[in-house]
Amino acid sequence: MIDELTRLSKSPLGNPTRLAIALYLLPRERATFSSLRKALKLTPGNLEFHLKALEEAGIIRTYYGFGKRPRKFVEITEEGAEELEEVLRILREVIEND
Amino acid sequence: MIDELTRLSKSPLGNPTRLAIALYLLPRERATFSSLRKALKLTPGNLEFHLKALEEAGIIRTYYGFGKRPRKFVEITEEGAEELEEVLRILREVIEND
Repeated sequence: MIDELTRLSKSPLGNPTRLAIALYLLPRERATFSSLRKALKLTPGNLEFHLKALEEAGIIRTYYGFGKRPRKFVEITEEGAEELEEVLRILREVIEND
Repeated sequence: MIDELTRLSKSPLGNPTRLAIALYLLPRERATFSSLRKALKLTPGNLEFHLKALEEAGIIRTYYGFGKRPRKFVEITEEGAEELEEVLRILREVIEND
């Protein structure tokens, strides 16, 4: 169990805010920066910080869409969905062995 | 679920390493710094960093025992045990609503 948590502490999703971002994105094809920010009640700077870390880790990708005004979109990658599954598996073990 | 994770991100136990420390301490009356460090495979500096944060948050207390040589002991507080219970409850909800 301790080993599992060590694994979690090294995951890009081993942080509640980043885990919340991934859980929000999983069932959605994509989300706008703005909807994500409102759903998670984060400041733009704070969300930007976490998205940058997640994008560098390959968990999400971001891109701009241009309609009436440019909007930033965020989506989870296949690798990100797999990592999320792994993190949820670890958390399940931690809870069950509690 | 997102709200629950926001609560978790504000908890002193909302970090896998600190969660592992609390889970290790819960069933024990106390642990030595050294046994904790070995069980969690942390460097002394890293463990010290997390213990300091947990002690400031009232989750654990540390003290020195003097035998043949001084040893640092760590134990979870009542407040810490309650916070751990709350964090495990939150994680259970995140998993079950997944």
